[in-house]
Parts: sequence; structure tokens; C-alpha cells
Amino acid sequence: MSLKEEILKIAKHAKCASSELALLDTTIKNQILKEMADCLEAKSDFIIKENRKDLEKANLKKLSKVLIDRLTLNQKRILQMAKSLRTVADLKDPVGEVMRSWGRPNGLLIKKVRVPIGVIGIIYESRPDVTAECAALCFKSGNSVILKGGSEAINSNLGIFNCLLDTLKKHKISTGAINLIATTDRKAVDILLGLDAFVDLIIPRGGEGLIREVAKKSRIPVIKHYKGICHIYVDSGADLNMAEKVCFNAKVERPGVCNAMESMLVHSEVAIRFLPGMIKKFKDSNVQIRGCPTTRKIIKTGVKAVTVKDYATEYLDLILSVKVVDSLSEAIEHINKFGTHHSDAIITDDEKAAVEFLRRVDSACVYVNASTRFTDGGQFGMGAEVGISTDKLHARGPMALEELCSYKYTIFGQGQIRE
Amino acid sequence: MSLKEEILKIAKHAKCASSELALLDTTIKNQILKEMADCLEAKSDFIIKENRKDLEKANLKKLSKVLIDRLTLNQKRILQMAKSLRTVADLKDPVGEVMRSWGRPNGLLIKKVRVPIGVIGIIYESRPDVTAECAALCFKSGNSVILKGGSEAINSNLGIFNCLLDTLKKHKISTGAINLIATTDRKAVDILLGLDAFVDLIIPRGGEGLIREVAKKSRIPVIKHYKGICHIYVDSGADLNMAEKVCFNAKVERPGVCNAMESMLVHSEVAIRFLPGMIKKFKDSNVQIRGCPTTRKIIKTGVKAVTVKDYATEYLDLILSVKVVDSLSEAIEHINKFGTHHSDAIITDDEKAAVEFLRRVDSACVYVNASTRFTDGGQFGMGAEVGISTDKLHARGPMALEELCSYKYTIFGQGQIRE
Repeated sequence: MSLKEEILKIAKHAKCASSELALLDTTIKNQILKEMADCLEAKSDFIIKENRKDLEKANLKKLSKVLIDRLTLNQKRILQMAKSLRTVADLKDPVGEVMRSWGRPNGLLIKKVRVPIGVIGIIYESRPDVTAECAALCFKSGNSVILKGGSEAINSNLGIFNCLLDTLKKHKISTGAINLIATTDRKAVDILLGLDAFVDLIIPRGGEGLIREVAKKSRIPVIKHYKGICHIYVDSGADLNMAEKVCFNAKVERPGVCNAMESMLVHSEVAIRFLPGMIKKFKDSNVQIRGCPTTRKIIKTGVKAVTVKDYATEYLDLILSVKVVDSLSEAIEHINKFGTHHSDAIITDDEKAAVEFLRRVDSACVYVNASTRFTDGGQFGMGAEVGISTDKLHARGPMALEELCSYKYTIFGQGQIRE
Repeated sequence: MSLKEEILKIAKHAKCASSELALLDTTIKNQILKEMADCLEAKSDFIIKENRKDLEKANLKKLSKVLIDRLTLNQKRILQMAKSLRTVADLKDPVGEVMRSWGRPNGLLIKKVRVPIGVIGIIYESRPDVTAECAALCFKSGNSVILKGGSEAINSNLGIFNCLLDTLKKHKISTGAINLIATTDRKAVDILLGLDAFVDLIIPRGGEGLIREVAKKSRIPVIKHYKGICHIYVDSGADLNMAEKVCFNAKVERPGVCNAMESMLVHSEVAIRFLPGMIKKFKDSNVQIRGCPTTRKIIKTGVKAVTVKDYATEYLDLILSVKVVDSLSEAIEHINKFGTHHSDAIITDDEKAAVEFLRRVDSACVYVNASTRFTDGGQFGMGAEVGISTDKLHARGPMALEELCSYKYTIFGQGQIRE
């Protein structure tokens, strides 16, 4: 069988299973998720052995430390995966939920009911834990999933996948519910992206390059999870102690994630009071500062000049660009221009400024007096997430079970006809 | 300026206006919509004169009667357009609505707030009234719109568009809010579909060919409004009088629309009692029947043999395919296989059958004991519609103001940081 035929077979199988999955009872789904978790724990030695194979290749290929860290599985990480599956089992089933219902003057009763989307393709890079988590979220939301992980993680992914599959088989659920495209052939993604007759949605997770390529090539709708260039704006009306605490958290707590702060904007009225202490604190934590001319006037040493390119860069590192602005409007315009519509915050006690910031900043998550680091399915109380959408259609911000669903209208009559 | 530069200029202009539009006060939007309606009425003679130019060309080109009817504007139709605009003005503003709000254990308050999508491109065919209605719906929902109507309606569209534009100018609203690509050059659509940096959503309205072409070429997300092959299934537990009334309505009341019935499925247990009277009634109204072998055994004369192609055809005409099925499951499987996931109904007094039908039929609107003809924004109480989505992502079924919106999360804290 050619690769094309193979992937087509997987997609058809997934489509077929999706109608069975859409009707599956909540208690059975939860039971299966919990048994998948048990299976991952029981087979952890095997999975770690498979992971070693990937790690050996990665070392031979001299992959970066960061990539190798993401790729690595150990007992702790496998327990974490199992825990995620149990968390998803405990979440409310979104399928069948009546989102809204209303009557019409002619007696028709209309209910808007949440239903699964169908078949979801997830294309991701090195992290093998994504395999278990995304499969669990799709399964719980009644969707078939086609997973295409990075080739550097192929053995790890297969190890995890087999646990999931065994549990499905044990419960006589169609194995089309969870699929893994296990090939290192780069053409696989292109083939998958053309199968719009069988796959309803593509979610790419990973670097910007991957996402752009997928969005460009796909004939299937894509929900993009682009990078986060997140800002915190310290307003003239800010509580400066709070601002220092929040900005420090947003930059330093975990700089390598998409909801970390990359640019700090400070109102000129408070810059002289705020910047010296704040920047000292950053420098003490090895944060490299790139500042605008005013910043560099206030902080005479150790601040590199910021460039326009800096403002448009997601550092994912202990680097911060700092700009002094003369007004709330200037801050908002900077954010809408250089940001990625992900997460942005204002620190202020001025309610009018807060309201204007919330209204005008065009981002998935807009904060008043809190760290941008809270943009996360778990932190939002959604239990888990497949990612954070920077798109505006279908799903925006943290994407979890509800966002993996569509809806249908069910309409109840007593013989109504249209005159 | 080349066509490409011209369309790029329009798209940039629209994007720029969209941030202004997103913040526009509800009362001002409503006032403008009402004045647009007044303007259409006041300039109706001019619009009709412009429409004559299109009609003359259409006659020269020997366009079909149906197309010429769709293209024709008269006083009555212009009054109807003005009325639509006033209806949209009276609808609730979706922008700023808090869809949901909840607190988190750490004290964060999260609000999910409806916001406009941004810039919406609408590509449509002959009907010039779409120009006014779609512009009004986009304007009310805070979106900039780029309209690309059929070239056969270019003068009519420009006539209407100028009314809308004059009203915007009078109120000093950026004219980028409502744009018309007024060219007969077929390349215009292709150019528009490539401008994903400025246009957020494309809605094609029209024949299947147009929609497929747009979906194939677009780099911008598309919400497809495909055809409706709608079914009514007369169950063994049906009230046959009700079934006759509803099926007749769904086929005959307005056969040329997407929510009309194209296939009638009848349970074998009631076929002998139901079909003779029902088919006589259809024939008396000039409905041509195409039946399965069992149907033709029951009705000996005047029933052509149905083909698989018939089952997959949207007639939009007084033609009906009829199939006798042996079970509810057979009916559901037929609908999911041959239908277009638009609107399907069951007639039954058996609650269990109704529930199974509602659960298993994978369509935007699934009815129990009512005509499929109710699938319509107005009938659903949404006031108006840009169309009926047969997609599952973002919007499904009638698409109106709420469906023209996205959302953002606004999060209120007191200095929370992530530990």
C-alpha cells in the first residue's frame, strides 16, 4: 500500500468511527480514559524503552538541548500523562449539552445542542505527551483523532498510542477513534491536509514555521495556534508595587511559554519612579533588557537599544523589550500593531483606563491587574487544553472540550408548516 | 492603479475601519441603518434606473428567467430592502454581550465577551438585495464588509451601495466600513481570496460551483453555504395526516429554496396507507415523483424510477424522490449518506424514534413533526441571516448577527501572579 493509500485508509476509518464515537455514553468514555491512564502507568517501562530509541537518534542528530528535553519521557512524565487522562475523564462531557433553548410564537421549540465536530487532525512536534493528551481531549469530546507527531518522537508516540489502542479494543470501540500516522516520511502531512472529505479540522501545534506551512497547504479548515508576543502596560494610574510583582512574574516565572511577557510598556508619568527598581529586579534574575531611548535615558547602563524587530519578536527567553509611552492610546496602538492577539495586560487603578484597554486591545485574553501567564485551559478552569488559538473563528484563546465541538439545532413541533 | 492594487487598497481600508466600527455605539449604528433605509426609499427611482441597465444587458445575454427575476428590482423590492435594514436596526447588538462569566479560586473574574470578527468578504451572485442586507448585518455586528456581487448586477449594486456610503459619510464614519468591489473582471475574486492579512472571513453565497471554487482558492477561512438536500422521514409511528400536511408544505410551498424537501422516506409499515393519498396530492400540484421499486409497486402509474443520482440531487423544483425504508436506521443512514447536513425531519409520535433520529442525523437542523422550511434566520427568531452554513466550524445552520462575531476573554484581577 502506498503512503497515500495508507493515510486515506486511516482517514476513512476515522470518519467511520466518528459517528459511533459521537453517540458513545459518557460513563463508558470516562471508564476508557481511566483505563488508558492505568495502561500508561503499567507499561511505563516499555514506553521509556521506546523513548530511549528516539533519544539515541536525537543525540546522534545533535538536536538542541531544549528539543531533547521536550522529547524525553521518564516515570514522572508518564505519571503526569496518566494524571491528565484522569483529569479529562473527570471533566463534564460537552456532547449533548443544551447550549440554549427557546420557543417560537408558532409553538416550535428550538434547542441548540453541542455535538462533536467529527474528525480532527493534530499535527505536532517533538513532545510525545501531546499524543496522550490530545487523544484524550478528542475522545472525550466525541471526535475521532488523527495524530501526526514529529518523526523524532515516532517510537515514543507508538508506545503511547498502543496503550490507547489496546484499551479501545478491550472495550470493542472502533480503533478508528484514535489514529496515529506513524511514518517519518514528510509527505504524510501534505497528504493528510488534502483529505477534506474525511477530516473536519486541523490543529497544528508547534513552531510558527510549521503552522504557516500547514495553513498554507491545507484544504481542511485550520485553527492556528500562533506565537504569543504578550505585553504588560503599566499605566499612569498603576499601583507600582503590583506592577512590579506582576511584570516580574509574567517575564521570569517561565520565559519559554507563549503567555510570558515579551514587551513591557510604561507610561511616561511613572517611568522614572517605576523603571529603576523594576529593571534592577529583572537584571538580578538575568533578564536582558532592550529599551527605547527614554528607557535608556532613565537607566544609563546595561540596557541595549530596542529595535522594531525586537518589538515583533517572541523571545521565549530571559529577554525583555521596554518602551515608555506617553498615553494609554499609544500603548494600545503598539499592542495591536506588534502583538499577536494572544494575551495582554494593563496594570491600573483607573477604571476608565481599564475599560478602554479591555475594549480596544484586540487579543484573545485581555487582563486588568493580573499576569498574562494565566492564559491556559487549566488556569481558566477548562481542565485541559489542546492549545491556545490566536484565530478569531470558531475558537479563540484556550481551546478545550467545548471548543472541540460544533452544535446542531433540534426543533420540536406538532405538525407546524410554513405559510 | 492595477486591479490588484485597487483591491488591496479596499482591503486595507476595510481593516483600518474595522477597529473604529468595533467600538461604535449601538444607538449610532441603529440610527445609521434607519437612515440607510430612508435613503434607499428616497432614491428608489434612481436605483430602479440603474437596475434597468443590468436588466437590458441580461436580456441581451439571454440569461434565464429565474436569473432575471432574481436580478430585478422594483418599488416593492426596494421597500422590502429598506424594511430589512430597519429590522436589523431593531435587533439586539451582539457586540459587547457577556456570553458567560465566572470566577476562579484565586479571585480572577473571567468574562467571555462577544466582539466583531473584523473584515468579512461576501461573494455573491445576481441578487442585488444581498448588497443591502449583508452590509447591514455586518455593520450592525461591528464588522467591515467587502462585497463582491455578480457582474450582471453591477449597476444595481452600485446604486444601492452609494446610498449606504452617503449615509456613512453624513455621519463621518470611515467609508472603509462598507466596500463594494465594482468590477466585472473575474480576477477580482481570486485577488480578494489571497488577502488573508486583511480579510478575516469569506462567505460565498450562491451556486455550488461558486462555493467550491471559493473554498478551493481561498487563503482566508471560508464558511460554506452549500445546497440543501433535505429529507422528511415518515416513521411507522407517524400521524399520517400530519405527515401529509408537513411533507406537502416542505415540497410545494417554495420548491426553489435550500430548505425545501427533495427526498421523502416512508417506513414500509405505513407506506401502503400513506403513499396513495400523498402522491395524489403531490401530482395534483404538478410534483413529479421519482420512486424506489416499492413505491412503484404501490403506485402503479406515473412514477418514474428513482436513481442513486436522484438521491444526491438538489432539484430546487417540483420534483421529489420517494423511498420506502424498512427501519428508522435505514432512514437515518440514507439521510447521512445522501443528505447535505442541512435540514431533515422525522414525523412520528414515537418518542424513542424521535430521540434516536435527533441524535443520529448529522444535520444543522433536525426536526420532529415540523416542516424543514423553518430553517431560516427569521423563522428562528434571529431577525435576519447572511445564509445557512452547512459547515460545522464557527457557525452551523442559520447565520446571523451572533454568528458574525468572535469573542475575547477579559480577565479582572487584583495583582494575581502565577506561582
